[in-house]
Parts: sequence; C-alpha cells; structure tokens
Amino acid sequence: MVEATADFGVVGLAVMGRNLALNVESRGYKVAVYNRSSERTKDLVEKHEDKQFVPGYSIEDFVASIKRPRRIMLMVKAGAGTDAVIEELLPFLDADDILIDGGNTFYEDTIRRSKHLADSGINFIGMGVSGGELGALQGPSLMPGGQKAAYDLVEPILTEIAARAPEDGKPTVTYVGPDGAGHYVKMVHNGIEYGDMQLIAESYDILKRVVGLDADEVAKTFAEWNEGELDSYLIEITADILTRKDDQGSDKPIVDMILDRAGNKGTGKWSSQSALNVGAPQSLITESVYARYISAMKDDRLAAAKVLDGPDYQFEGDVTATVEDIREALYFGKVMSYAQGFDQLRLASDAYGWDLPFGELAQLWRAGAIIRARFLQRITDAFNADADLHNLLLNDYFSDVAMKYQGAARRVLALAVQAGVPMPSLSAAVAYYDSYRAEVLPANLIQAQRDYFGAHTYERVDAPRGEAFHYSWYDEA
Amino acid sequence: MVEATADFGVVGLAVMGRNLALNVESRGYKVAVYNRSSERTKDLVEKHEDKQFVPGYSIEDFVASIKRPRRIMLMVKAGAGTDAVIEELLPFLDADDILIDGGNTFYEDTIRRSKHLADSGINFIGMGVSGGELGALQGPSLMPGGQKAAYDLVEPILTEIAARAPEDGKPTVTYVGPDGAGHYVKMVHNGIEYGDMQLIAESYDILKRVVGLDADEVAKTFAEWNEGELDSYLIEITADILTRKDDQGSDKPIVDMILDRAGNKGTGKWSSQSALNVGAPQSLITESVYARYISAMKDDRLAAAKVLDGPDYQFEGDVTATVEDIREALYFGKVMSYAQGFDQLRLASDAYGWDLPFGELAQLWRAGAIIRARFLQRITDAFNADADLHNLLLNDYFSDVAMKYQGAARRVLALAVQAGVPMPSLSAAVAYYDSYRAEVLPANLIQAQRDYFGAHTYERVDAPRGEAFHYSWYDEA
Repeated sequence: MVEATADFGVVGLAVMGRNLALNVESRGYKVAVYNRSSERTKDLVEKHEDKQFVPGYSIEDFVASIKRPRRIMLMVKAGAGTDAVIEELLPFLDADDILIDGGNTFYEDTIRRSKHLADSGINFIGMGVSGGELGALQGPSLMPGGQKAAYDLVEPILTEIAARAPEDGKPTVTYVGPDGAGHYVKMVHNGIEYGDMQLIAESYDILKRVVGLDADEVAKTFAEWNEGELDSYLIEITADILTRKDDQGSDKPIVDMILDRAGNKGTGKWSSQSALNVGAPQSLITESVYARYISAMKDDRLAAAKVLDGPDYQFEGDVTATVEDIREALYFGKVMSYAQGFDQLRLASDAYGWDLPFGELAQLWRAGAIIRARFLQRITDAFNADADLHNLLLNDYFSDVAMKYQGAARRVLALAVQAGVPMPSLSAAVAYYDSYRAEVLPANLIQAQRDYFGAHTYERVDAPRGEAFHYSWYDEA
Repeated sequence: MVEATADFGVVGLAVMGRNLALNVESRGYKVAVYNRSSERTKDLVEKHEDKQFVPGYSIEDFVASIKRPRRIMLMVKAGAGTDAVIEELLPFLDADDILIDGGNTFYEDTIRRSKHLADSGINFIGMGVSGGELGALQGPSLMPGGQKAAYDLVEPILTEIAARAPEDGKPTVTYVGPDGAGHYVKMVHNGIEYGDMQLIAESYDILKRVVGLDADEVAKTFAEWNEGELDSYLIEITADILTRKDDQGSDKPIVDMILDRAGNKGTGKWSSQSALNVGAPQSLITESVYARYISAMKDDRLAAAKVLDGPDYQFEGDVTATVEDIREALYFGKVMSYAQGFDQLRLASDAYGWDLPFGELAQLWRAGAIIRARFLQRITDAFNADADLHNLLLNDYFSDVAMKYQGAARRVLALAVQAGVPMPSLSAAVAYYDSYRAEVLPANLIQAQRDYFGAHTYERVDAPRGEAFHYSWYDEA
C-alpha cells in the first residue's frame, strides 16, 4: 500500500511537464510524477535525487501517493491524449479531487470535460500556461478556469510557481472564470501573439524592402523602440534575433538563412474561428493567421512571383521620419489588435456567461507570457477606470494614442500599398479604426441588397431599433 | 392504402419549398407535398387545384404516395429541424430512396447525415440552392452533392427546374461531389456573395463620401459599370436600389433611410471558419463578414464617432478619372476574392477528397445564383485551359486584369486611407496580391521568433524543405 505523502501530482513529463514539476518542487512541495512511458519518470527522479519527487510507475500508485483532496496537473499533448489520461485516472480518483489541464486545450473540450468530471464529483481546472519551456521552469503566466472553490485549493501553489510582474512583484495568476474560461483567455492571448508577431514582421519587411535598412540597422531600430512605449518581450527578442549570425558557416544574418514559411499550432486559428462565432470583428489577428498560410504556400508564391508584377517604386522619403512613422504605425496596430482582442473577450464572456476580469487578464500577461509588455498596464488602468468599458478605443489613453498615431499609420500603409509591400495586419488596423469610428457605414446598401434578393428586411434610421421593414422592389416593374 | 402515384415529394412548404414544388410540378411531374402543420399543405393544393399536387396529411401517407425509389426533397429550416424530419421519415422509407436536403445546411451536418442514412441504405443528396424565392420558382442554381448513382436518378428533374445560362442555355446544375460537397460549394458561393456585396458597398461609400457623388449619380455609375466587365446581378440591383425613393413619405432615396446595420445568416462565417481549417488565406470574405459585425455595433460606433477623429481631407482629384479608378479597383478586388474562394475550394476538395469540378462550379453560378456575372465564364475558361490550376492569378486572363488594374486599386486604397474611409475588403485584396506574388515574405522573422521562444524550429533557404533546424539562441549568454 502506497502512502499518500505528495502535495501535488504531475502527469506527462515532456519538457513542459518536467519543468513545471521542477518549479513546484522548488517551492518546497513534494511532487508525485508520472509518465506513460516510465523511462521519463525514472530519468527525472534519478537526475534530481536531492529533490522531493515521488515517482509513480502505475497510475494507481501515482494517485495513491498524493494527499487528498488530490491536486493533479496534466501536461500532455492537447486532444485525444488528454481524454485518455483522464479516463485512466478516473477509477482511482475520489470526490473533490482536482485535475488541472495545463495543455493548450481547445476551450470547448475543457467545457465538455468539466461537465463530464463533475458527474463523478471531480473538480476540473483548465489552465492556460504561457511562457514556453523557460517560463514553465522559472515562472509562467497562468490562466486558470474552473470551479472557484477548487481554484482556492490550488491557488497557494499556483501563486508560488507563477512569474512576478516587474512593476509590482505581483504573481501572474488569478482566477479567470468557470469551465473553459482559462483556456479561452489563453487562446486569445495566443491570437494576440500572432498579431504582435505579424505587425513586427511587417515593420521589419518595410524597413528592409522599402526604406532599405540592413539587418543590423533594423536590429538597432528595434532595440531603440524597445526603450520606449513598445517595450516588450517580442520587440526585444526581434532585436536580438536580427544581430545573430548564421550558425552553419555563412557570414549572413541567421534571419536571412531562415526560410519564409511560418508554421502554426492552431491556437491563432481557433481564436479567429471563435471571434467569428461570437460576432467579434477580430480582423488583425485573422490577417496574421492568413499571412502564415500564404507564407507556407512558398511554391505557389515562387510561381506567382514570376508572373505577377508590382509597382516600380523607389523610396525617396526621409529615412529618419519614415522609421519613426513605422514605429508609430506599429504601436497604432498594436492598440487596434488589443482593442479587437478585448472586444472578443467581452463578447465571449457574455456568450458563455464567464464574467471575465478584463483588467486582471492584462495583469496576468505582464510577466511570463510571450506577449508581456509595458503597454499592458494601460489596459488594466483602462478597466480599473471603467469596468464596463466596451472597447479600449473608448478609453482616453488608447483613443489619444490612436488619434495621435493615425497619421503615421496612414502614411506607412499608403507607402506600402504604393511600393507593393504587403502589410495585411496594418491594413486591417486602419480599416478597423475607420470602421469603428464611422457614424455611418455603407451597410445600409448591404441591407437593401439583402432585402432585394432575399426579403431579409431592414431597419430604418427613423424607426425604433428592431422594427423590420421590407421594400416592394418588384412592384414597379 | 395510399397509391404511389407521385414522381417527387417536397417536405416543408414555406416560401422556398412551395416555390420549388411549383417549379417541379410545372415541368409535368406529379408532386407529393407535406408540411408539419397541414394548413400550408391544404393552402397550396387549394390555391392550385389545376395542378398535379398530392397532399400528404401524415408522413406515412406522404411517403406512401411517392413512386419508388422515392425522390424526396427537404425544404426545412437548416439545423435540428432537418434531423427531426429525417427521423420522422426514416421508418417509412425503403432502401434506395433518395432524400435531398435543399436547405442552407452546414456541410459537416450533411456529411454526418449522409453516413447515418447510408446505414439504412437511403441515399442522401445535400444540395445548395441559390436564387432566393424567385429563383426557386423560376429556376435556381443547384449544387447537389451525394452518391453519384442517386444523383443520376434525380438529374432529369433537377436539370428541368434549374435556371439556364444566358450564354449557352445550359442548365445551372451539375454533380458536385460526394456527401457534403454540394453544401460546401454553396457555402463558399455565399461567402463570395458577402465579398461581392462588401466590395460594392465600399465603392459606393467612397463615391459618396470622398468623391462626393449623390445617390442618383452613384446609381448612374453602377448602371454604366453593369454594361462592361462588371456586368452582374449584384451590380444591376445596386443601380436599381439607388434610384428608389423612400416608400414611407420622405423624398429621400430609400437607401438613405435604411439603417447601416447588416445582418447575416451564418454562411459567410462558416466559409471563413472552414477557410481557417483548410489553410486557405480567404481574407477578403472574412473582412466582409467582420464588416457586417462592426456595422451591427451601431451604438458603439456612435459613441466612438464622438471621440475618435479622422483626417481632415478634402478631395481635389479628377472625378472622372477617380470613378474609373474605383471601377477598376472593384474588379481587381473581385478577382482577388474569387482567386481566394477557388483556392479554398481546391484545398477543401483535397482535404475532404471531393474532387470538385472547379470549372463547372463557375458554370453553375451563371444563372439563378445571386453572384451570377459575365465574369464567371472566365473562370470556367481558366480551368478548361488547366484543370490543375492552383490559383486563378496564375491564369493569363486573371493575371492580366490584376496587373492592369493594380495601379487603380493602389490609388483608390491610398485615397481611402488618406481620407479616413474604411475599405477593409479592398485592403485585403491589395495585401493578398502583394503577398501572393512575394518571392520572400517576412515569415522568416516569425519562424525565428517561434524558434526563439518555443523551440519550434525552422527550415533553411539552403536546405531541403522539411529539414528542421534549431538555433542556440541562449548559449551565448
């Protein structure tokens, strides 16, 4: 009979699970560890003989080695693997035990699993974990969703393993909301990450292809930008990346040796698909997902490049002024992207009844998360000033930035369009700004067309909202 | 005992079902009709006593009144209602009977139902029907997918009720492919319709708000455009709509009395969600879906319009030249939209194993369909010239148009961006053109970032595709 001595359990000991287990153990907890193939379990405990690990070589022994109510974290590949592990664990769990899924799980799977486990009295926390391998070890950003009472039982541990915000030392973890809320927030976080990366890539592209800077000059530019309001992890690593040389012998920058085909793991796609479901106009992130798809069509592009010409454009602008314009355009794009992302969170929160704490979400991302940035504090401030804020663009700080930088955004986009360099995400940002602030959009014509061919009816400008009118388009014929 | 005398059955007698039943009957077929509430059935047969209708007042009698193998068309509201009707019918059907779902059904539901019915030996055809109420009565565009042998048994009737292309008198129906192929094609058709409508709305907006034309002048402009390469149903009705006066007493154009909040029935959204799944960069349609979402946020926009200013812009260009630029930009946008739409069809065809007949699909839409247009013949020609064409932009006609009109598209977009008028779909079109023809995109930087924070690896420009490299980003520290 195994004695229950462990404070916490981790299932799945690939690099993320292993690092999280090490992180938890380092805070003074005894951690039970289990992996389907026992080599990994053995390897972990042997490499860390001095640490308080309890290896489990069967699911039954692993579960039995944990004190009740058990707190068990799953760090397995999201998808069918998660269901399999849950079914293996289930016979050995007791009521009030807590499973935490730390994978990049689709939030609707989390909602489904939460319901399924509740039938057996098991609590389920779907938790977004951002920060990569290093974050898992040293302090990730955590986005847990599930039963509040269960969260309270794991909060002490999560608080200890999370990152600390540089501004105020607060841990980057908070209760996000019921069932799928945590994984939803992580999904939107990842979508925002796609948008940030694409905006940076477009800035790099126009600096290189239109303004004519070389990799070193672009690196220097990003490093300078990182000293100001754009200060963020992604800008910082971009500057670093651009200084690195090829590691395979050529004397070129490594970035010039990397093929321009971007991959993706699906979370950006999910976030756009959900935006489409909840009615959120999340165009910037979506364009950044599509940009990766087009990049992956390398052979088609090579064929197209031979056929399709572009404009004959020679840059004759002022380099310093244009570089500053590009910086402002990037920040303008970032503001639009976060405005869209938080609008999506608001609409999803309403649709799923999650009551998401918007301001706190921005706090969670200040450390550990890939999108960590100085700018996030502004979002928290905005929701602190107005908890019911409908859109970041209606907050003073963000509206001021948008208005101040729109001129630069327009100039940069016009320049790119004229030069034939694609800036799909900046395009989406400018179109969003001009749509969102439009008292009248041409959707009246669209409604007229829909009524014309499909009798879909329309509202009138001089009648109460919701009253449906239909025009006799065909009677005059 | 009811005698089996009817050649065809229709379930669901709302306006679409009713009109389709009348259409089939008018071709000399005896049509059994059934509706859940029998008033509609009674009403139809009483209003058309001279016609060969066989009313069914129970599902059992309805089914029994149709000759075997039975051909029964469902014209019910897509969703759970379709499942309910199928379950009601199932006990009375025999092997080899054919159910045709003519609703706006989500293609994955059609795939599921096709499998389910196959277990009972029942054939299932999921058929897209375009053309609205009038099309249903006089000749719709039909996109049937399902068992080929079952299609052959309904082909004679479908061929007779379909529209006829004005160019060559051919019926607008053909076998599209297995299971969900027909509804998928209809979904993309609808997505393309969203894109066409949004491009027209953006053109109308810039003509009105920047160039300064009034509704009559815009109407005249669209009427002229309809004489040339833009010749299409949607351009035609736009010209007509803009000439119509308010029917509620004011002397204004009706379009100025219609509220600018666009609705949607979800097919545009589905088409974007599927594009995201199959890896198709379908940005223009997606932007047109998002444009409807933003339009619906009227109260937010009114609040934003009070806060967020735009550029102070006064148009001083040449009106005639700019109007021609806008026409060319619209056609450029349309070419990009169809290039994206057919790319999505290609990728979906591969993903689902449908072997879609791309050139014939464009033929189907030449009459009956909302997107009918002279331009469609060019698509058929393109696939006739090269059945394996990867993208319309690689065909001579479309590449020539794109290159010839890109200048106008760039000028119009730059004008809109400068003037603060949103053209999200034209923006997506230009960004797509410049991305698709780009030999090098900045996705190399994105891959470097992904490798930096997540060890996601990258390919190299000097190594075979698929070979994964990882850079030691942290070793130098």
